[in-house]
Amino acid sequence: MIKTPYLLFLGDAPDPLAAKVAQGIRDWRPDHAIGQFRMPGCKADMKLPDMTLEQARDAGAETLVIGVANRGGYISQAWKTVLLEALAAGFDLASGLHNLLRDEPDLVAAAQTHGRTLHDVRVPVVDYPIASGIRRTGKRCLAVGTDCSVGKMYTALAMDAEMQKRGLKSTFRPTGQTGILITGDGVPLDAVTADFMAGSIEWLTPDNDPDHWDMIEGQGSLFHLSYSGVTLALVHGGQPDALILCHEPTRTHMRGLPGQDLPSLESLRDVALQLARVGNPACKVVGIAVNTAALGEDEAMDYLAGLEAQMGLPAVDPYRHGAGRLVDALAAV
Amino acid sequence: MIKTPYLLFLGDAPDPLAAKVAQGIRDWRPDHAIGQFRMPGCKADMKLPDMTLEQARDAGAETLVIGVANRGGYISQAWKTVLLEALAAGFDLASGLHNLLRDEPDLVAAAQTHGRTLHDVRVPVVDYPIASGIRRTGKRCLAVGTDCSVGKMYTALAMDAEMQKRGLKSTFRPTGQTGILITGDGVPLDAVTADFMAGSIEWLTPDNDPDHWDMIEGQGSLFHLSYSGVTLALVHGGQPDALILCHEPTRTHMRGLPGQDLPSLESLRDVALQLARVGNPACKVVGIAVNTAALGEDEAMDYLAGLEAQMGLPAVDPYRHGAGRLVDALAAV
Repeated sequence: MIKTPYLLFLGDAPDPLAAKVAQGIRDWRPDHAIGQFRMPGCKADMKLPDMTLEQARDAGAETLVIGVANRGGYISQAWKTVLLEALAAGFDLASGLHNLLRDEPDLVAAAQTHGRTLHDVRVPVVDYPIASGIRRTGKRCLAVGTDCSVGKMYTALAMDAEMQKRGLKSTFRPTGQTGILITGDGVPLDAVTADFMAGSIEWLTPDNDPDHWDMIEGQGSLFHLSYSGVTLALVHGGQPDALILCHEPTRTHMRGLPGQDLPSLESLRDVALQLARVGNPACKVVGIAVNTAALGEDEAMDYLAGLEAQMGLPAVDPYRHGAGRLVDALAAV
Repeated sequence: MIKTPYLLFLGDAPDPLAAKVAQGIRDWRPDHAIGQFRMPGCKADMKLPDMTLEQARDAGAETLVIGVANRGGYISQAWKTVLLEALAAGFDLASGLHNLLRDEPDLVAAAQTHGRTLHDVRVPVVDYPIASGIRRTGKRCLAVGTDCSVGKMYTALAMDAEMQKRGLKSTFRPTGQTGILITGDGVPLDAVTADFMAGSIEWLTPDNDPDHWDMIEGQGSLFHLSYSGVTLALVHGGQPDALILCHEPTRTHMRGLPGQDLPSLESLRDVALQLARVGNPACKVVGIAVNTAALGEDEAMDYLAGLEAQMGLPAVDPYRHGAGRLVDALAAV
């Protein structure tokens, strides 16, 4: 396990979304995050104390967590300088980047010199099976999005938290680096070999009590040209009983794909449901989770009310207003 | 490149479909296959001379190609014995199995001792990019199936051969081990890391002449719970202009998934087209390729005529009757 508490490394994040790893830790395990480290030009801010490496060590931080991702997941030379200083200052490093810490000889050497540990949470550590398609006991909920980075993980985390609060049986099942850094286990799905993707999700969500819900973290979007295959593996490996549609209403094009329009929520509902029913004919779309962070309160409430009328489903921002109504909707499944 | 000619290793294939690698080589590069090696219980037959390792070496065979796959792609102990003897007899080995030759210490040691080469064609040898979603020049055709192993590769190979015969510009683009063993290059898609699947297909089918067609080998099925994510990456990475629906009419359940029904061709058409149009709004379904190997000639012709009336699309068995009408249909795109 990764040693806590963390200093969150935000690097030179080009925008707040790039720091979603740090934001996830900040929001769901705030006790683990005692400070942030930002470089010149950093456009992200976790509203945590800005600390030097020395200040954070003095405050008790054990691990520098790379809380930011750039497109492709590379470790830049500017970052490398900080990471080497952190190892020398006594930090372990934890990362969910594609570019592994362990593949950087200078980091490996420095970790050895200073007796520190490199954690690459993106690397699969299990030999996942090929999916069997066999139904499991227990229930599963999956968030599917009109786009990447629209709040699927937050939705699952918020629903899980609400279930726990109500004394219901629920487990958040992480499928990405942030979720894994938050909970300490899960499947780093985007690093799994293609043939074993669906099988890894079956492995992650095994037989359980009939009244237990797995809240599976979604990835990508069925409509995102770069990552849609990963999403479909979640739909078919997870065999969800319930789908939550996730959306960010101010997005003007698919993330990372200029000129590529977002699908309508109706299209997402229809395509996701048709594909999900291949694995679980009883699957239902039970609600809509909207990331309204870019909207004012009145604007958000108006938007949600309109969407609810349009789609005939509860529509909420689970992070802003709580996931109660989405959890209520699960009871109907 | 892998040295030819081959001796095709059929092992203890549990059924003919398990030997589809060998069958592909036999059908599309018959000059490369001078014999077959079968073990007790083998249920596959390429109608090639059965040869011992010694007979095949005397006949000039340079490489023993593992032409059979078992579920999960493992090298059994029974196979291992033959492979070690083959190395000692002077063969190189070529394999598309998940279980790599290079990961078996005894094979590596024997290859070194005898100066032979181990070819694992399943291993990606390129750092594929993340898909950009940007449209490329030239045209692309993708075969999508109601199930796995319904003739998608044969359809693409037959259409490519017909295009070549007509003097049209066409390239077969392999995405699996058989195709790679047939042509010598391609993307081993099921072994690609999840995030890079669609990007690998963009890489495989780059900008080309406006009148050039890539005939992309399909994989899996959008309706196959184990492999659907791989298929969707092909649909979105390939951005096909034309889809061919592939089907095997005597299949009683999805391959490897007892109790899981096949989708209708109408469902396949609608779901595949809706998803393909995310990447290429002009995409059309142009024809149907049916593997009628299990039907008599009259039965096959009746079935195809009925399907053509039902679907309003040319329906042919491209392997049995030629791919001419499918290639004709491309002209309309």
